[in-house]
Amino acid sequence: MRKDGRSCDQGRPVQIIRHFTKYAQGSVLIKTGETAVLCTAMIDETVPSFMRGEERGWITAEYNMLPSSTKTRKKRDRNGKTDSRSVEIQRLIGRSLRSTLDLSKLGERTIKIDCDVLQADGGTRTASITGAFVALYDAIQWLLNKEIISENPINCFVASISVGLFKDVPILDLCYDEDSQAIVDMNVVMTDNNEFIEIQGTGEQRPFSQDELEKFLFLAKKGINSLIADQKSALGIK
Amino acid sequence: MRKDGRSCDQGRPVQIIRHFTKYAQGSVLIKTGETAVLCTAMIDETVPSFMRGEERGWITAEYNMLPSSTKTRKKRDRNGKTDSRSVEIQRLIGRSLRSTLDLSKLGERTIKIDCDVLQADGGTRTASITGAFVALYDAIQWLLNKEIISENPINCFVASISVGLFKDVPILDLCYDEDSQAIVDMNVVMTDNNEFIEIQGTGEQRPFSQDELEKFLFLAKKGINSLIADQKSALGIK
Amino acid sequence: MRKDGRSCDQGRPVQIIRHFTKYAQGSVLIKTGETAVLCTAMIDETVPSFMRGEERGWITAEYNMLPSSTKTRKKRDRNGKTDSRSVEIQRLIGRSLRSTLDLSKLGERTIKIDCDVLQADGGTRTASITGAFVALYDAIQWLLNKEIISENPINCFVASISVGLFKDVPILDLCYDEDSQAIVDMNVVMTDNNEFIEIQGTGEQRPFSQDELEKFLFLAKKGINSLIADQKSALGIK
Amino acid sequence: MRKDGRSCDQGRPVQIIRHFTKYAQGSVLIKTGETAVLCTAMIDETVPSFMRGEERGWITAEYNMLPSSTKTRKKRDRNGKTDSRSVEIQRLIGRSLRSTLDLSKLGERTIKIDCDVLQADGGTRTASITGAFVALYDAIQWLLNKEIISENPINCFVASISVGLFKDVPILDLCYDEDSQAIVDMNVVMTDNNEFIEIQGTGEQRPFSQDELEKFLFLAKKGINSLIADQKSALGIK
Amino acid sequence: MRKDGRSCDQGRPVQIIRHFTKYAQGSVLIKTGETAVLCTAMIDETVPSFMRGEERGWITAEYNMLPSSTKTRKKRDRNGKTDSRSVEIQRLIGRSLRSTLDLSKLGERTIKIDCDVLQADGGTRTASITGAFVALYDAIQWLLNKEIISENPINCFVASISVGLFKDVPILDLCYDEDSQAIVDMNVVMTDNNEFIEIQGTGEQRPFSQDELEKFLFLAKKGINSLIADQKSALGIK
Amino acid sequence: MRKDGRSCDQGRPVQIIRHFTKYAQGSVLIKTGETAVLCTAMIDETVPSFMRGEERGWITAEYNMLPSSTKTRKKRDRNGKTDSRSVEIQRLIGRSLRSTLDLSKLGERTIKIDCDVLQADGGTRTASITGAFVALYDAIQWLLNKEIISENPINCFVASISVGLFKDVPILDLCYDEDSQAIVDMNVVMTDNNEFIEIQGTGEQRPFSQDELEKFLFLAKKGINSLIADQKSALGIK
Repeated sequence: MRKDGRSCDQGRPVQIIRHFTKYAQGSVLIKTGETAVLCTAMIDETVPSFMRGEERGWITAEYNMLPSSTKTRKKRDRNGKTDSRSVEIQRLIGRSLRSTLDLSKLGERTIKIDCDVLQADGGTRTASITGAFVALYDAIQWLLNKEIISENPINCFVASISVGLFKDVPILDLCYDEDSQAIVDMNVVMTDNNEFIEIQGTGEQRPFSQDELEKFLFLAKKGINSLIADQKSALGIK
Repeated sequence: MRKDGRSCDQGRPVQIIRHFTKYAQGSVLIKTGETAVLCTAMIDETVPSFMRGEERGWITAEYNMLPSSTKTRKKRDRNGKTDSRSVEIQRLIGRSLRSTLDLSKLGERTIKIDCDVLQADGGTRTASITGAFVALYDAIQWLLNKEIISENPINCFVASISVGLFKDVPILDLCYDEDSQAIVDMNVVMTDNNEFIEIQGTGEQRPFSQDELEKFLFLAKKGINSLIADQKSALGIK
Repeated sequence: MRKDGRSCDQGRPVQIIRHFTKYAQGSVLIKTGETAVLCTAMIDETVPSFMRGEERGWITAEYNMLPSSTKTRKKRDRNGKTDSRSVEIQRLIGRSLRSTLDLSKLGERTIKIDCDVLQADGGTRTASITGAFVALYDAIQWLLNKEIISENPINCFVASISVGLFKDVPILDLCYDEDSQAIVDMNVVMTDNNEFIEIQGTGEQRPFSQDELEKFLFLAKKGINSLIADQKSALGIK
Repeated sequence: MRKDGRSCDQGRPVQIIRHFTKYAQGSVLIKTGETAVLCTAMIDETVPSFMRGEERGWITAEYNMLPSSTKTRKKRDRNGKTDSRSVEIQRLIGRSLRSTLDLSKLGERTIKIDCDVLQADGGTRTASITGAFVALYDAIQWLLNKEIISENPINCFVASISVGLFKDVPILDLCYDEDSQAIVDMNVVMTDNNEFIEIQGTGEQRPFSQDELEKFLFLAKKGINSLIADQKSALGIK
Repeated sequence: MRKDGRSCDQGRPVQIIRHFTKYAQGSVLIKTGETAVLCTAMIDETVPSFMRGEERGWITAEYNMLPSSTKTRKKRDRNGKTDSRSVEIQRLIGRSLRSTLDLSKLGERTIKIDCDVLQADGGTRTASITGAFVALYDAIQWLLNKEIISENPINCFVASISVGLFKDVPILDLCYDEDSQAIVDMNVVMTDNNEFIEIQGTGEQRPFSQDELEKFLFLAKKGINSLIADQKSALGIK
Repeated sequence: MRKDGRSCDQGRPVQIIRHFTKYAQGSVLIKTGETAVLCTAMIDETVPSFMRGEERGWITAEYNMLPSSTKTRKKRDRNGKTDSRSVEIQRLIGRSLRSTLDLSKLGERTIKIDCDVLQADGGTRTASITGAFVALYDAIQWLLNKEIISENPINCFVASISVGLFKDVPILDLCYDEDSQAIVDMNVVMTDNNEFIEIQGTGEQRPFSQDELEKFLFLAKKGINSLIADQKSALGIK
């Protein structure tokens, strides 16, 4: 039994609120337990200079924690040096979303994803991916509705969840207290076909075996399937 | 008659949601029409080095717009250079809140105010001050409830509103479309005793006369009184 | 009676030296009591990218204190972060000068104002505006003399002065010692028609009343009229 | 058959030169095919402030590519913003090395790892980990030989290698040309007990299945075992 | 005959105005022809951390050109990257002044030199050294007069001048037009004993011979002797 | 007799390894005693914007010390502020190399020199110049061989060495221990015609006389002639 009463293979309750703000073409507030992230997708009718003329689109992502999102106030990245953890996370978000799309169907434009963490209780990077996919979906629907693009570039749904080893037991969807004591920490990004987009696993306190890896991936699949059901439900897709 | 149906001396509807996030001692989401700002107050048990040993507290404020808060995505301040408009605004917020307190009753600690704009439709700086005061109030109640301080340092309530000259008519509480075409733009910070904490008026398109100034201040007083009533109502004070 | 023998409604002696350096089209050393600021205006035959094609000119301003201008040496802004007080001041200078001009008569060019404080004894921002207007006037005369522009874009003269409440008495043109103890501090920017370009008033130690505000503005008008007479005398205009 | 004649499950020839420079306590030039990285370990008798008094040591790592290490000259990180790919890599190197040690046996000191890429032909991050472990080993021997520490903090050997899917075939140890066209790219960090320290796999062009994952891990194990044999041989351990 | 009527071995007229501003213990405006530099010396009762406890003083120098000091406006160093030419010059100024002093007689304090160029017409670095020495002299007199130090740390006078090869003729004290076309450019820092503190000579368009070097040094000596006479005259020393 | 057994007029053994890395058109590892510098020359088919259309080429240089190149680890220049000593040195390297070329024969392209110090034991800037010239020579041969340019722009060979006064004796080619105690320190850049490209001499502990200067230059000539012989030998030129 876990601190918040969940079983080992149980994720936290998820809430996905679309159209949370009005300017972004996709704007989603995702809550996973006590973690809350505002994920927006804004369309920019240019591509980075190294891609001009290639007739393909691009997705960029930025991740940021608000100063008040953590127990001890987090300083803003205003000294010209983006926090290195944020850099790592936003690269992961960008890669994960790009790999779900046929970028040539997007045309020469960029969709800019922003994930701003309002409240952090573990799993902010995985919630960011899960929420940002919904915002991206809405932004692409906007392009289709306006007939700016004619074919849907989305190949599959994508969501992300954490798994880990806590007191030598594999568990799903770690909250902050669990995460900070985890022996192994793994983030998995998967599609609705149960295929992997990204696996990042780290032995924090000791290495882990192939056998343990298989248990983590089994839990992750269960969690991802549930999250993708939540995404589809929020989007009104059955 | 204004675009959104208001009369010239009518402010926008205000919503003040306390305890919006859980880590900050004060956390307020304020909505003024379509403008939404998350205002938090976090207590830090130190003071800046130049104040050590003076047995007084301090208030600092940071103001920031989320990238998705504006129609065209706003770049983050990650190049080491805080946007100059943000610098000006956060100095105003800090000064306004400090002047409502007896800092010697706060003890040697800092209350750090963060105003993060989620959605901007004019009046973000005035909404920040009005909302941040409520967050500050909650943080100070927290200190009093925990018996960390024994006397309430708050001398008065403070709120802020904009006034301006639009198509040669003085109006209250400008939305973005009005603000961007205003002939004169003025932000007023006042107390519940109808006294001024700060007046900042700018002739954007032409200078303004003493007579016009008096009309602006009359409107501002009306708006501030209404905002302070909203603050007290949110705090359950009659 | 004030420390330097002035009465409450008396400004400090002003000296305006034109052509202080040779490269800028306008170059003015202004001394107000012990405060000395070098104000220059240099013409740049481009406008910021967001204004291209609008057939209007622009004015930008930078404000800086030399390290030796203050009692304790002031560090240079070389760490990539302009001092926030400087940011606020240079925005004020730019706004104040722009509002005196018909920018469409200036053509697509920028006049760059630099205000470098050589010695600071209070009132550096107001002296900067008063001196920079004379430098701007000279730069515009240069454009007219060279027949680069055909119509004078200047609509009015502008000058600036501080007023404040010191030991509960309203006084004009505060020196540093007065400013650092002022109860209320206000900077006023006015035209030669006695209209306001900018009012910035702050209750430093306590809020101030409408009645006090009127006294401040009365003093400011007196001071501004005297400064504009000094500007016209330096420019040989009667 | 691969471009350089290797079979799919064959790594590149490895050369590990110890004592390449003289000041660092560990200094290793590692060459993996055409990739060359200088890995150094320098002892610093302090720990970061957040760890003081904990009686544990720390490992930090920095990764950098020399401007001439790539076909097109790479700009130096001198604008105050470390290249985001470098940030991600140096965090991986630090985590991987820390997890091989019992940090409490290191005492309150930091070992600073620097990985400077002299020539890049794919696999610079995995070569950095493999080489840096040898430099770390030498630095720890130095501490043991000087009797600064009494117990060896090293729990296991660690090495790293890339695997990937190239033209739909799983291959080991990708060179740059293979890496830039890989369908799936995975970096694996393992111990000499065949346990995982870190797995980072990315579907670059399409998601990958559980079955493919198993093939990648099988190849990785083979490669790691060979690299650890190379490390032991360079260190004169049988 | 040179453009401004000088002979080849003739320096420009020099004006040294002491006490130009009031806060710095030494404040000198030096004019060399059309070049004008404000050189100040401010006493700071600390030394850099690496020198604490050594019972020696230190001299630091900063060099900066005001934006309006050059024909085309020079951007301020506000992007966090000091102009590389300024870095080179301020290191030269610091070294030159330090070598004239017995730093142990200065006590554990720093004299901070600031050289701010108000108008640049060639020779700003040499004018900075010549003027800064006088400011340093005044600051040290101030320390002696206040009996903060008991022995004069100054071992010798120091001044600096440029020499160069212009249209194949060696000339003294180059103005900007000469400097920008010089074949060889050399800056010499010398004492009143005709000994060298620093020689920096560069073949800009071609290498130069030993014979030419001797001619340059002969001219430099002549110029330095005249400058030191100017310094002594300004200081009232015969 | 010197610490390492050399006589006063004897330089350290020199090793020049060409083609040390494979991407740069010129890539040289130069060792001078215990000092080792990787000097590369990479061709960039553009020139800085201020030179476009002038039909001349350009040479830029960057100098950097690896963190592990010094006894105490040297921090990387990642805070946005290049170490001021590095700035000074890279300007010297650039100037020295440019003055050996007829830049109009290079065409509108830039050769980018990088000098990365692998191990520092005094004389890194002079070794950088000596090694970088060989890398530049190779890059220019590459351009000639590919028939991208038709005429050789190199006018002369250039090398550099340090001289100094150590315990009142003039010595050649100072190692770190000698350099850190030198009374006078001088770096000389000369051609194979025994002409000067650059002389930079500094009286570190006391001024130096004309007589001493002549002794330094005599030693420098001897050292340079030997270095140029080493360069020619490495290049297979007799």
